[in-house]
Amino acid sequence: MFFRKKTLPLTTKIQTQALPGFIELLPSDQILFNDFKAKIIEAYESFGFLPIETPLIEREEVLLAKVGGETEKEIYKIKKGDNNLALRFDLTVPLARYVSEHYHDLVFPFKRYHVGKVYRGERPQKGRYREFYQCDVDIINENELSLQSDAEVLSLIYETFSKLKIGPFRLEINNRKILFGLLENLDLSKKEKEVLRILDKKGKISDQETVELLEKEKIDTGKIEALLKILNFEGSTFEIVEFLKNQNISNETFLTGVTELEEVLISLEVLGVPTHFFKVNLFIIRGLDYYTGTVFETFLLDNLDLGSISSGGRYEKLTENYLDKKLMGVGASIGLSRLFIELKTRGLIKSLKKTTSQVIIIPLTENLIEVGKVAKILREQEIKTEIYLEKSSMKKKLNYANKQEAPFVILLGDEEISEKKFTLKNMNSGEQEKLPIEEIVEKIKINDAL
Amino acid sequence: MFFRKKTLPLTTKIQTQALPGFIELLPSDQILFNDFKAKIIEAYESFGFLPIETPLIEREEVLLAKVGGETEKEIYKIKKGDNNLALRFDLTVPLARYVSEHYHDLVFPFKRYHVGKVYRGERPQKGRYREFYQCDVDIINENELSLQSDAEVLSLIYETFSKLKIGPFRLEINNRKILFGLLENLDLSKKEKEVLRILDKKGKISDQETVELLEKEKIDTGKIEALLKILNFEGSTFEIVEFLKNQNISNETFLTGVTELEEVLISLEVLGVPTHFFKVNLFIIRGLDYYTGTVFETFLLDNLDLGSISSGGRYEKLTENYLDKKLMGVGASIGLSRLFIELKTRGLIKSLKKTTSQVIIIPLTENLIEVGKVAKILREQEIKTEIYLEKSSMKKKLNYANKQEAPFVILLGDEEISEKKFTLKNMNSGEQEKLPIEEIVEKIKINDAL
Repeated sequence: MFFRKKTLPLTTKIQTQALPGFIELLPSDQILFNDFKAKIIEAYESFGFLPIETPLIEREEVLLAKVGGETEKEIYKIKKGDNNLALRFDLTVPLARYVSEHYHDLVFPFKRYHVGKVYRGERPQKGRYREFYQCDVDIINENELSLQSDAEVLSLIYETFSKLKIGPFRLEINNRKILFGLLENLDLSKKEKEVLRILDKKGKISDQETVELLEKEKIDTGKIEALLKILNFEGSTFEIVEFLKNQNISNETFLTGVTELEEVLISLEVLGVPTHFFKVNLFIIRGLDYYTGTVFETFLLDNLDLGSISSGGRYEKLTENYLDKKLMGVGASIGLSRLFIELKTRGLIKSLKKTTSQVIIIPLTENLIEVGKVAKILREQEIKTEIYLEKSSMKKKLNYANKQEAPFVILLGDEEISEKKFTLKNMNSGEQEKLPIEEIVEKIKINDAL
Repeated sequence: MFFRKKTLPLTTKIQTQALPGFIELLPSDQILFNDFKAKIIEAYESFGFLPIETPLIEREEVLLAKVGGETEKEIYKIKKGDNNLALRFDLTVPLARYVSEHYHDLVFPFKRYHVGKVYRGERPQKGRYREFYQCDVDIINENELSLQSDAEVLSLIYETFSKLKIGPFRLEINNRKILFGLLENLDLSKKEKEVLRILDKKGKISDQETVELLEKEKIDTGKIEALLKILNFEGSTFEIVEFLKNQNISNETFLTGVTELEEVLISLEVLGVPTHFFKVNLFIIRGLDYYTGTVFETFLLDNLDLGSISSGGRYEKLTENYLDKKLMGVGASIGLSRLFIELKTRGLIKSLKKTTSQVIIIPLTENLIEVGKVAKILREQEIKTEIYLEKSSMKKKLNYANKQEAPFVILLGDEEISEKKFTLKNMNSGEQEKLPIEEIVEKIKINDAL
């Protein structure tokens, strides 16, 4: 007993790490993350998308209406009283519920963005998180929705990644009807699921392995060849469209798919997206069942192993479980948390600030009245101003300012107060000068504008 | 059976309301809410507070370390695998965990703000929500923390509500040591809990009822009189301080409390908070056990029935369950969701915008190239620009623009394209004129600056 007492800590402390699969950042990274998120929201708003927010908790029946299998297992369930509740796992199901609930109060086409956390109880592993931000945009309309809307969502994703400046990227676009039509044409619709699952592995397995897997599904070698000959065709965006048009395939689904794809691509160019920022990739499938036409993924060309950084598409039956209305949509989602962590880890983005403060005032006097006045003037000029208010040694005060890496420090002692000039220290250059408050304001503002 | 089939809907639809006690806003209110939240964050950052964010889910043992009784019953628990998890019910417990976990990476004094949702499974009732935003600021330091920090938090709350422009308000400030000291002095420390619970009802019950409740606790009439004589003293802020100093009470806790209170009040004035924005209220207690000195609440003077809209105080043992360090703090919290809904319901804030778009382009042509170009130019000028892309009738297009209430609409037809002048309609004045794009940019920017 005595021995045990000696080896156990006197007080048992509680574990303080965030849960595995949950992200928690230090302030410098949080500042960077917030900037990154703000830029995405800015892009979404620049296209006139409206903000919405929904509760993180939903009724279980709402969340389970459209899913099953793997996703259901990943849902965080909450038992509270008689209600079966759960945390949302995406922002699309809440959108469907929201649009149904507020149908009479919304103006259609309803263009909304939603930036929020979602929850998936996956096995934690590299690049997989249990709590992460999604940044969604969708356009919802009743009865019909123009293909220009598909192009608009794509052009917004182009704008967003252009603004984020994270390197060259490309939107890879497809239309599911092309695949469905090809399979119909080859009389392979019965094996649609199996074939799509195999084609979806493209890039992860070799072409030879693709053929082998398809053969395992007992698909005729001739049909496999016919299918892959089309999907593997290489050429520029509009060459691929021409190639598809010249296949003499009369299947209606296929032809609709090709026409839709062409219209989306033309509209995309028309809306100002340079052609080298997008291409056709007939292997793009997207795992989710609800997509019916346009589907796309986005890749960072210098970091292809990162996988798709934004994806989405068009769906026809958004609200079928809630509402007797024909509402359809097209949308895109950016998996912000994973993207941020990956870019950070690869050094493609760097936290540049340890504080958002533009200046730290260090009082060297007991006369805080003047300190308060100086801070007030600076803040009125929209300069983020911190005051060091602890009774510490001069060394400790300066040490704090150094560690925070604020661009400027103001030293404010009795001498300064009587002279009505305050010592402004530029923390980058080390330069230090006594200036009246107006000139201090100017110096800080000029520095900020650089 | 036939009869039942006729009365039941063909398909059973799922309930779409948000859960009771959960807030879900229409876009116009969401825009207002986001503006409101942004102003609070702007105020917090103007004082140099750093942003942090923590997971919404915590280990149950973390959340339960400091609470019991009622709060425990209100916690949303999550069962996932072997882990006992739960949703956070405030931002203070996560702060304590965060500071403990990242102790070696933080710079002290650590000034952080945190705006996030918290969860309490209370019985839903007016003004009580199960999911709501808290906006917290705290200053954490090791070993000691100046009373100027208490004043800084209070002055930040003053600045925040000044910026929100929601009517006259007042900070009501106390120091718990004064109450503890008075009770010690009257030999009532054994009944501290009971007495504080009764005093906390001040304002909700009459003075006579207060006396009766204290008598029920078998407290001497003389002691009740002595206690209430002090607490009920009326006067200006510093008159109350003088009155307390002149009570000839030698109890050390009491005297420390008075000295601390005075220093906080003086610092508050020194930091630029006008005296009529704060007063001493010796009845302010705050329900939470962890406060040890300064405590405060904030009231809207024209809406006193709303109760406190921001409260907080100083605490000494933030991280005692996690870390063998002496970390203390002072903080404040604004219950954003409740405040927003109350102000909205009372008409004290109004949603002014149905969209954040500054202009909606309505194409009256199939030639979308020009539409794309105009949108690009406007967006490059940081004008939030929406394009109406559905193939609808002219009437339907204009109807959309009218409903969205964007300040401007651009009508863009073939005539406009050949003239290189586009029809700009001011939706408020109804004024309509054909202008080159540069003048359109100017008009929209001038309007926005008004």
